[in-house]
Amino acid sequence: MVLRMIARGGNIDKYPAKAHARRVAQNLHESKGIIVVSAAQLVPWPNSDMPAPFRQDRYFYYLTGCNEPGCRVTYELETDILTLWLPAIDKSRVIWTGRGSTVEEALAKYDIDEGRYLPAHTSTLPLQEGTDVILSSLKGELEQNWPHSVFHIIANAAKLDLLFSSTPDDVVLASGIRSSKGTKARQLQWAIDSCRVIKDEHEINLIRQANRISARAHEAVLKHIHHLSNEAEAEAEYMRVCIAHHAKEQAYNPIFGSGVNAAELHYVNNDQDFSHRQMIVIDAGCEVHCYASDVTRTLPLNRSNPGHWPSKEAEQIYNLVAKVQEACIAQMIPGNSFYRVAWLATEMTMAGLLELGILKGDKDEVRKAGTWRGFFPHGLGHHVGLEVHDVPPRPPPKDSKDIVAGDGQPFQEPLPPTWRALDWYNTPQPHNIDPETMKDYTILRPGMIITIEPGVYFNSFLLENFFLNDPAQRQFIDQDVLKRFMPVGGVRIEDDMLITKDGHENLTLAPKGEAMLECIRRGAEEGRRAGRDQVSREARP
Amino acid sequence: MVLRMIARGGNIDKYPAKAHARRVAQNLHESKGIIVVSAAQLVPWPNSDMPAPFRQDRYFYYLTGCNEPGCRVTYELETDILTLWLPAIDKSRVIWTGRGSTVEEALAKYDIDEGRYLPAHTSTLPLQEGTDVILSSLKGELEQNWPHSVFHIIANAAKLDLLFSSTPDDVVLASGIRSSKGTKARQLQWAIDSCRVIKDEHEINLIRQANRISARAHEAVLKHIHHLSNEAEAEAEYMRVCIAHHAKEQAYNPIFGSGVNAAELHYVNNDQDFSHRQMIVIDAGCEVHCYASDVTRTLPLNRSNPGHWPSKEAEQIYNLVAKVQEACIAQMIPGNSFYRVAWLATEMTMAGLLELGILKGDKDEVRKAGTWRGFFPHGLGHHVGLEVHDVPPRPPPKDSKDIVAGDGQPFQEPLPPTWRALDWYNTPQPHNIDPETMKDYTILRPGMIITIEPGVYFNSFLLENFFLNDPAQRQFIDQDVLKRFMPVGGVRIEDDMLITKDGHENLTLAPKGEAMLECIRRGAEEGRRAGRDQVSREARP
Repeated sequence: MVLRMIARGGNIDKYPAKAHARRVAQNLHESKGIIVVSAAQLVPWPNSDMPAPFRQDRYFYYLTGCNEPGCRVTYELETDILTLWLPAIDKSRVIWTGRGSTVEEALAKYDIDEGRYLPAHTSTLPLQEGTDVILSSLKGELEQNWPHSVFHIIANAAKLDLLFSSTPDDVVLASGIRSSKGTKARQLQWAIDSCRVIKDEHEINLIRQANRISARAHEAVLKHIHHLSNEAEAEAEYMRVCIAHHAKEQAYNPIFGSGVNAAELHYVNNDQDFSHRQMIVIDAGCEVHCYASDVTRTLPLNRSNPGHWPSKEAEQIYNLVAKVQEACIAQMIPGNSFYRVAWLATEMTMAGLLELGILKGDKDEVRKAGTWRGFFPHGLGHHVGLEVHDVPPRPPPKDSKDIVAGDGQPFQEPLPPTWRALDWYNTPQPHNIDPETMKDYTILRPGMIITIEPGVYFNSFLLENFFLNDPAQRQFIDQDVLKRFMPVGGVRIEDDMLITKDGHENLTLAPKGEAMLECIRRGAEEGRRAGRDQVSREARP
Repeated sequence: MVLRMIARGGNIDKYPAKAHARRVAQNLHESKGIIVVSAAQLVPWPNSDMPAPFRQDRYFYYLTGCNEPGCRVTYELETDILTLWLPAIDKSRVIWTGRGSTVEEALAKYDIDEGRYLPAHTSTLPLQEGTDVILSSLKGELEQNWPHSVFHIIANAAKLDLLFSSTPDDVVLASGIRSSKGTKARQLQWAIDSCRVIKDEHEINLIRQANRISARAHEAVLKHIHHLSNEAEAEAEYMRVCIAHHAKEQAYNPIFGSGVNAAELHYVNNDQDFSHRQMIVIDAGCEVHCYASDVTRTLPLNRSNPGHWPSKEAEQIYNLVAKVQEACIAQMIPGNSFYRVAWLATEMTMAGLLELGILKGDKDEVRKAGTWRGFFPHGLGHHVGLEVHDVPPRPPPKDSKDIVAGDGQPFQEPLPPTWRALDWYNTPQPHNIDPETMKDYTILRPGMIITIEPGVYFNSFLLENFFLNDPAQRQFIDQDVLKRFMPVGGVRIEDDMLITKDGHENLTLAPKGEAMLECIRRGAEEGRRAGRDQVSREARP
């Protein structure tokens, strides 16, 4: 359907499922065994006959490129055969919901070696209840094809439950006699995660395309913001463009937070009037073929003078965050540590808040107290891929052999001694530093896609409950100055950065800074000419 | 937030949770015991850190009017006390996701007797894993307040699992010593279902409001259809209006099926070009405060002559379906049996198909063979309420006492003898006829809201696999005539009918028939004047 959407002046390649499977296998250091991963199921809401939204399991998708429910994928390490198992087609249901792919269609669409149907009843059985049945039915098929590997598991009733379940542990390596849930499943999951960290050209193009559509949708909001008066109307315009461009699925719940709501980081109600609020944070990005984009823009809400800052304070905070983002982006180069970039963001934000007079006192003491966290309470960024918060590089499970990333290079490099005293920028102990070897897993590598999203917020709940009520923190905050800045609400600017061989490419195309203001002004001008104000009033509830 | 949206020239009443609880209690014929129902939880997608969409449990909502996750409600039969249990507020999460209601806010918002906080850790624990913990923590509270009733259950480990689980069986009546999962849970669920069948004024107003917004959204599509060229663009326009009117939640996945897709009843891909297709079926309705609307309109896609039928065949099928709908609507009066209305729809559709020459042969033989089901393969309608397919009246569980509906009247009336031979209109054995007493539970009563949605489809898969390949059916189908009608795809028209004391009220306001055509023509005319064609081309991917 939307294949044409990922075309970039050439033929569209299939999603490289086979290459992914091989890369994962390379990471397993196993010569025998079968990888088995289940697709997500289409199930009704509890106590209802309506289907709950379907979201494909990302591990399954990585090995197939298939977004259909109820499938399985198997990859045999020994023979290098990637098989997609499709739900049998239930003719009596076709009139209601259509059908999934036939084997022939699957072979044409997906980068697999073979397609097969699952036994007829597996397609309608809930997965957990039906596990035994599925396996019993599958047993003949599996025995016939891989007599040495899977049979042992099937014969072992205790392990049947694990094979096709859909919990976080369900990525199971079914590998001959030595197979066991814990170790093998963790090892396989980690092997896939390690591959997922480095995006190939196909994946990059999907994220590029998601960013392209998100940019269009953000632009549409900029053009219309002058005549909108409620967060819901802005979200409506954003979603209109995404849906029209076949990107209904969002990588996360869109955030349209005006005024104080800008300072609630995962605000999703999106239902309040702009009234006299100064700014709106729009954090919204669509998915394309299960790949995410993640885009944040902060706009002035200045109805009387669209495309201009509503206050000096708003402009100052926006410019501070923009400066931090720009400096961090410049640091997104291969070989650099993301910790260094995050440190830079912290230092610059703190310096900016001191300069504006919101923070006061000695810089080293403020840093030590962590008072800046009252205004920048989240991390600088995260990987983006099949998840909007995609898997980061992680130390290997204790019992694993050395593992390489998707590009065949080892991940871990020793953390430079100067970076070991991480607590001086007050982050919690990071999960991607190996606590024993102090190796740093945040080294930037070509093919990584990571957001850069600094922010400054004025959240009265956070400040009152954790900072202003604590003398050790309060001493570093100038409450008179703070009062002037509270109405700004919050500012965040976020782009998706692809690390390239030579540096980086910013995949996010939505206008920001002066270009954004110009876009709002142009929209307001066009709106005036087209009498768009009138249309808006007509459309109000 | 959206309270103002349900205002109808007066103060807004709270959702009548207490009245619902009392009505349910009346149906239980128990003097002691506590009804306990859990809200839905906010949980991440499997293998992901992103929250899955939240949908409130409808039984919980019926007893609270509260759309917040992680709550519980208890209603003590003896003392008539309705208590809402709120998740404890985790201050460290407020900066991320805000917080749920405080007890004070809950008392102001909801029609409850008291609000209490659940123990702190229950709010973040997944429900199934945390059940024991929740109950242990709750035990003190419960013992203190209801020493006679719940303690027995808490002391019985085998039943702990049942109390707050979220499976279809989780509606549990915790009633003193005699409590047991099976019987009591079924009895309570049935008692609530029986109440839900008859809507009170508050519920009717919510469904009215949902229909009002859906109508606006359908109208917007009508006005723009002349310059749209893909199903996704039509859905985008529909969703824009719903979201802007604070009705982002849809009662079901919107269906925008053009041409052949119109004949796939639950088609949801909504991604194909109109090309030269004749018609589009739009089946889309939003929710307001968890209450559904369900609206279907079928539009001509006639770019060269907007608002006119693209073919004689399209017009004939539309007019047939419209005539059937009109006649059925006229039959929606208190005391009538919905079976009679469904029978009428079948008879009229069959007669129409015979008249058009698509069906041929003797009417009685065609009826007996059920050949009309190749063109009208679904039921005539269903209840609408907290679910789009809301609970219908059902025979009571075997071990229950007599039960009354929300209006205090008994449901069951004996099925008239003439209606007992149901198979003559070829429906499957209905689930709301008591097989032993042959009592008819489909008698229409004031306060019921039921869709009337006849349709005629030309689904080649259905016809080829179940009718044209079967000589017993094929003999009644004129394939030459059929060929002319295949490009029509399908037509369905659906309204939500409220049964009133004197007859009915059509809650669905979206234009249909001539008013719909006129709306398309007006939109095309306005579009021409505003140069909207140009805007559309600009917006294409």
